[in-house]
Amino acid sequence: MRRGKRARHAEPRAAAPAYITRKLRPFEPLDEEQLALIEAKADLLLKEIGIEFRNDPESLRLFRAAGADVKGERVRFEPGMARRIVQATAPRSFMQHARNPARSVLMGDDAVVFAPCYGMPFVSSLDEPRRYGTLADLRNFIKLAYMTADLHHSSGVICEPADVPVPKRHLDLAHAHLKLSDKPFLGVATAGSRAADTVAMCEIVFGRDFVDRNCVVGSIINVNSPLVLDHTMLESLRVYAAANQTAIVTPFVMGGAMGPVTVAGMMAQALAEGLAGIALTQLVRPGSPAIFGAMLSGLNMKTGAPTRGAESWLAMTGLGQLARRLGVPFRGGAASTTAKTVDSQAGQESADMLLMTVLSGVNFLIHAAGHMEGGLCISYEKFMQDADHLAMVARLLQGFDLRDDEFALDAFREIGPGQHYLGAAHTLRRFADAYHISDILDSNSFEQWRDEGSLTAAQRAHKAYKRALAAYAQPPMEVSVGAALDAFVERRKRELDGAAP
Amino acid sequence: MRRGKRARHAEPRAAAPAYITRKLRPFEPLDEEQLALIEAKADLLLKEIGIEFRNDPESLRLFRAAGADVKGERVRFEPGMARRIVQATAPRSFMQHARNPARSVLMGDDAVVFAPCYGMPFVSSLDEPRRYGTLADLRNFIKLAYMTADLHHSSGVICEPADVPVPKRHLDLAHAHLKLSDKPFLGVATAGSRAADTVAMCEIVFGRDFVDRNCVVGSIINVNSPLVLDHTMLESLRVYAAANQTAIVTPFVMGGAMGPVTVAGMMAQALAEGLAGIALTQLVRPGSPAIFGAMLSGLNMKTGAPTRGAESWLAMTGLGQLARRLGVPFRGGAASTTAKTVDSQAGQESADMLLMTVLSGVNFLIHAAGHMEGGLCISYEKFMQDADHLAMVARLLQGFDLRDDEFALDAFREIGPGQHYLGAAHTLRRFADAYHISDILDSNSFEQWRDEGSLTAAQRAHKAYKRALAAYAQPPMEVSVGAALDAFVERRKRELDGAAP
Repeated sequence: MRRGKRARHAEPRAAAPAYITRKLRPFEPLDEEQLALIEAKADLLLKEIGIEFRNDPESLRLFRAAGADVKGERVRFEPGMARRIVQATAPRSFMQHARNPARSVLMGDDAVVFAPCYGMPFVSSLDEPRRYGTLADLRNFIKLAYMTADLHHSSGVICEPADVPVPKRHLDLAHAHLKLSDKPFLGVATAGSRAADTVAMCEIVFGRDFVDRNCVVGSIINVNSPLVLDHTMLESLRVYAAANQTAIVTPFVMGGAMGPVTVAGMMAQALAEGLAGIALTQLVRPGSPAIFGAMLSGLNMKTGAPTRGAESWLAMTGLGQLARRLGVPFRGGAASTTAKTVDSQAGQESADMLLMTVLSGVNFLIHAAGHMEGGLCISYEKFMQDADHLAMVARLLQGFDLRDDEFALDAFREIGPGQHYLGAAHTLRRFADAYHISDILDSNSFEQWRDEGSLTAAQRAHKAYKRALAAYAQPPMEVSVGAALDAFVERRKRELDGAAP
Repeated sequence: MRRGKRARHAEPRAAAPAYITRKLRPFEPLDEEQLALIEAKADLLLKEIGIEFRNDPESLRLFRAAGADVKGERVRFEPGMARRIVQATAPRSFMQHARNPARSVLMGDDAVVFAPCYGMPFVSSLDEPRRYGTLADLRNFIKLAYMTADLHHSSGVICEPADVPVPKRHLDLAHAHLKLSDKPFLGVATAGSRAADTVAMCEIVFGRDFVDRNCVVGSIINVNSPLVLDHTMLESLRVYAAANQTAIVTPFVMGGAMGPVTVAGMMAQALAEGLAGIALTQLVRPGSPAIFGAMLSGLNMKTGAPTRGAESWLAMTGLGQLARRLGVPFRGGAASTTAKTVDSQAGQESADMLLMTVLSGVNFLIHAAGHMEGGLCISYEKFMQDADHLAMVARLLQGFDLRDDEFALDAFREIGPGQHYLGAAHTLRRFADAYHISDILDSNSFEQWRDEGSLTAAQRAHKAYKRALAAYAQPPMEVSVGAALDAFVERRKRELDGAAP
């Protein structure tokens, strides 16, 4: 079994599905009346308070043309208006294409797509003190995500490559994703020109026509909550949407700071912000693929630190239901923690948020592997433990199988009461795939665990990540395409050097 | 806030409710047709395979008198028969009374009751190597549970006191629970005479008439799965039921060993076993309080070790729905782990199982604090971390509050877009109770965490348990009652010494 596990890590399972099609019914704690109430409150915010679109006249122009009430940079919507704009043209679901068609993922409907972290400035491993991320780390994590069957998507800037100048990072980022992996990925939203470069690189790989007709890339577009979208994000949103690529519009509310402390208030605010942002994508290019995202947390008012707890779990669950009613794919949750070391806090917080979000019917889960420090750090060890956890969660999402053989009547007839079922024909026929066997979690006896060195899960995960990286093999790419990508990056870097002051 | 937390640990919050009344709708992934199918398969097992009641003629006599098909020690039931016996008289819910009436708990309906571990032979702490439990440990954990507002119940033999001879343990156990705590507790099921002693000790505290009319104690009755109940458990079940005390009938299925490897098979088996055991309680004394329990796990077929994963989560969720249809309180789940040290595995596995079970509508959750090593060990540090986690889960179970003030419209009007909400009147009015502030989880910055010693959650929990034990104060008990309990234990120990060979 161990041997089998290692083999699995060496390259993605050939037969592994590119994404999960959930069979488990989502957890839907809010009823119709409650959902309609939250929607009405979001509409009230959109009409009375409005959303600011800062330093971006083009957005204001589009909203004015669509009939919104634009005063200065403040845009207000009549109740139902933003929703109508979204529902008129935003796709309920869409494919994000990978350069390997077998790894293209469905966003929305019953699909669930897991992706590693996004945007972590720091990196940690048991080898060395926590430090800034590098391009080498970014490449490592892209490789690890490529090799993990239960990560369906390569994410974007998994960690910030601090050793690359900011104006050039997006080039090395897209280059690394496109070359080291064949899974779908995301670009940056740090400037419109960088978003355009990202789209151009995808055109080299996918062809210009294909990109214009299909989603192959996109980016997280963070709302500058409360109730603001700023020029940087808006410009990137417009570039991606115009190119028919996805904008993952993500309200980012730390309750009490970027919005009210109450769950209901956070949900209404996030919905209002999401509606306004997604409406803009549809005004830029009707039918362009958009995703409604949400990152929500509490706040320790004494220390100013974000906290994880019931308020985030509830808000995320409610927003999952609201997204389905709106009819757009939902991005939410994370295997997220505020822990600084891979300890029992990290395990607990990550499992809490991951399970709540997955049960709530999330479609796209970024930060599914490696998340630490409330989003400031990615850990190699946590990455491996989370990836293993995702395999269990994937089984959960398969739900209940109640076909005849599952009830094992032949086993009960063969063995009956009081005897063990290890040798039953049914057991022998079914055990190989019955349970997920983890190489990170240790279920052995205390004595065996002690004799094997009393390792923590983090220490086992450390070995696993070294093993996996050593076994990495790059997926094939047409030589001419690879060369064209190299040339593009080289040219743009030269141009950027020339443009520098 | 820290100061406040310590004060809270010194004694249970005066105003803390004795148990949780869940407002969050349970997660119910199976539909009516699926539930009826599982019930039909359980009925098939009860009719065709049957259940063995070993070395307990009285049980066989009761089943024969009730019209079951009894051949040797095998009891078979016509479809629907066991269910009819249960539903005719078993209460949907009942109070388990504590000696402090303010701490009595409701079992069943929308009530959720958390209790610490049960039956752990080993104890661990960061102070010393893992070792056998002692009476001092048992007393410590009873004190800690008493001081933890979010543990509503004192459990039973939290850890085995290996320094007390087995025939006398039940006396020290009931004595410790009754004296050191005023929360409800459970007795042993290791012999009928010991169950009788436990009931007698409760009669000293509650009065004989009160005990005969009300549930004040009981025990876990483990099914010797597959499909067997043995004399030890049956005798205890009969003593408790006859005394109108609760039997928590608990199938204990490790898939592939004590039943089939498939989730559907495990669920049908557990339901069949639970139905047969609870039916017996009603034949012993109609209307006596019974609880349907379930402990389920997977199995690593290579090592023989129990595993945690999607199969247990799914089966527990399904059984929660089946228990509600049956109409008896449900005991399930656990903050359970197979980890040997309080690491990220312990945190992850415990959160997974705890959340899945709590979402599924569990009524009574034993092993809610301290569980390690698949049930072989209790950790002081894990106890404190789990207790803290339960406070978050209790908030989750309060569900969504959508009253007007929760939408914070005044805050949005006061602050608007782009400004922080820290000083909003709504925030100031609401923040004190808005989020759970943990003293085990650290949400501070890396730098602050490092400057405070780079502690793990387990290390913080270690300090917390020392602090809590130092602050313990025994709840008052009438002097004459205390003396009568002392005298009972002394007399019975003397008698047991005399009876020894």
